[in-house]
Amino acid sequence: MNPRGKCRTQATSPANAHLPAAIIGRRGVIAAFVVLAAAFSLIAPATVAAQTDPLPSWNDGPAKTAIIEFVKTTTDAGSPKFVPPEERIATFDQDGTTWVEQPIYTQVMYCLDRVPALAEKKPELKNVEPFKTVLSGDREAIAKLPKEDLVKILVATLTGMTVEDFTAEVTPWIQSAKHPRFKRQYTELTYLPMLEVMRLFRDNGYKTYFVTGGGQDFVRVYSEQTYGVPPEQVVGSAGEVHFGYGQDGKPILTKEPKLLLNDDKAGKPEGIHLVIGRRPVAAFGNSNGDKEMLEYTQAGDGARLMLLVHHDDAEREYSYGPDSKIGTFSDALMDEAKAKGWIVVSMKNDWKRIFAFER
Amino acid sequence: MNPRGKCRTQATSPANAHLPAAIIGRRGVIAAFVVLAAAFSLIAPATVAAQTDPLPSWNDGPAKTAIIEFVKTTTDAGSPKFVPPEERIATFDQDGTTWVEQPIYTQVMYCLDRVPALAEKKPELKNVEPFKTVLSGDREAIAKLPKEDLVKILVATLTGMTVEDFTAEVTPWIQSAKHPRFKRQYTELTYLPMLEVMRLFRDNGYKTYFVTGGGQDFVRVYSEQTYGVPPEQVVGSAGEVHFGYGQDGKPILTKEPKLLLNDDKAGKPEGIHLVIGRRPVAAFGNSNGDKEMLEYTQAGDGARLMLLVHHDDAEREYSYGPDSKIGTFSDALMDEAKAKGWIVVSMKNDWKRIFAFER
Repeated sequence: MNPRGKCRTQATSPANAHLPAAIIGRRGVIAAFVVLAAAFSLIAPATVAAQTDPLPSWNDGPAKTAIIEFVKTTTDAGSPKFVPPEERIATFDQDGTTWVEQPIYTQVMYCLDRVPALAEKKPELKNVEPFKTVLSGDREAIAKLPKEDLVKILVATLTGMTVEDFTAEVTPWIQSAKHPRFKRQYTELTYLPMLEVMRLFRDNGYKTYFVTGGGQDFVRVYSEQTYGVPPEQVVGSAGEVHFGYGQDGKPILTKEPKLLLNDDKAGKPEGIHLVIGRRPVAAFGNSNGDKEMLEYTQAGDGARLMLLVHHDDAEREYSYGPDSKIGTFSDALMDEAKAKGWIVVSMKNDWKRIFAFER
Repeated sequence: MNPRGKCRTQATSPANAHLPAAIIGRRGVIAAFVVLAAAFSLIAPATVAAQTDPLPSWNDGPAKTAIIEFVKTTTDAGSPKFVPPEERIATFDQDGTTWVEQPIYTQVMYCLDRVPALAEKKPELKNVEPFKTVLSGDREAIAKLPKEDLVKILVATLTGMTVEDFTAEVTPWIQSAKHPRFKRQYTELTYLPMLEVMRLFRDNGYKTYFVTGGGQDFVRVYSEQTYGVPPEQVVGSAGEVHFGYGQDGKPILTKEPKLLLNDDKAGKPEGIHLVIGRRPVAAFGNSNGDKEMLEYTQAGDGARLMLLVHHDDAEREYSYGPDSKIGTFSDALMDEAKAKGWIVVSMKNDWKRIFAFER
């Protein structure tokens, strides 16, 4: 029933399935074909597996072994841990789990960067706080803006336009804006080890979803190109959209300043139910905001994999934990992870290479 | 990047791609294999296509021709109407579009049928309206219940339990309850011509979604088995769910009596954006409730297909239109359909066979 499952079945089904009668009649040709196809399918996978490491950016260790073993057993029809193709759902947090989230979330950076263009269109904002402070460029003052002011900036830059206009505004930014420390585009700051994990899961019939506290529409702009995750597999914080008609009578969807889903903490399993409607078999996160998603994942029957990325590599990336404002990894979360057998990945020790641009 | 697209590519990629060196070395064997595989791929599809009508339950006519032509041109890489695999999204209303919706929606029938079990658990309801009337079995009185009372019944039977308990309650009902006129299970009252359309689209790389005014969790119970539409491809009216912990400490999601998405009329394109995040290329409906979904679909660039099923067959199914309380098809909708080139399907004339159980 599941498109992926069906597709895989087609690819590996007997070579003569659905052969028209005219072809079936050519017994000699077909027999040779079937024998060769069978030989191919028996020999090739084992040989390939022996030669290829699916997670080359990972150091050998318990985390790497557990991930590979999980994918292997859940896709082995002879294993008691086998998961049917249609139930193969893996969910990934984004900020801090598949790309850099320090020093501030990429989407917040976008909103701040967007203020000048907004003030061009609405000059009255130039003398109104918090926009005045943002326009001043005073980084220290901007960093000190209270949460309420930040919300005003998010609302002003993320809502009020059609969904198409929003995409058109984000696209050039994500293609050009640079991270303050790495001087690279944000889409270059994805973690190679996690891209490998996403690919390994997909190559084995899993659907990979983002389940992010970030804006659903924001992440959708680049998720397919950057991660291979299509828009329909992005669950994120979402505002209401309003259906109406533009001046030319054409139907439009306008982004409204009203939160529909706060996809963080308890909102993650709630959002998973809304958009996916299945409990994930594997879940990947990096902070307190992912706790409920991992708990919900683990509460299902059968094989489960729960993983947290721990940022302990100040040299190659960042080191932060219980005291961080972003991506907080509390001591209680670490205790829970240990008690429940969740995998805690040390960026420093488990990841051989973090970014694709590293040599 | 898209899993389907990728999958299709794998299935049709050259037979020797990724062959390990040990196998490549056996030149004779491989060469024979490649030649045979190529011959197979060249001969088989054409032969199959010539023999098979993808819509055998449809009478020949403009509707059938338009559907087949649309799928053919949008999946032909040489056509100006080609749609890339990742953008192949087709959305289907359910009640009245893919199964019978008269004399009342199946889900409402479920809610009424559920009241006795509810009253067993909560005896205090037995003397409270509207539950008292429902328990009396007086069909005329039940039919006259005002909308507010109906809402009370929906809330009492669709919320307050975990999502797993809800599925466990609906499953035996959908497997046993019978339609009052046809004396068949509701899942047997699917329209064969529409099942064929859904399959045709899927076989050509489209993802088929339900976009239903019915309850998302309700439809998810049977959509995969009945229609081949997995839970994650069901967009429907949805209440909030609340994440919490059961008495045993296990995480649970409880269905709350608060509407999050009213997936009807303007709510359909809004729900499509929330769950799918792409504009459909094709949309199928049958009533005023589908108008906005079809308008939104048509407003995109490139090839588009909009279709409305018109119930004009009182003998084999039902005949209803502008005056119906359920599935209203107003004169204004018919005018809009004609003006905008939407396909209007006459059940009476366009469908050779409506149900699978018909001979």
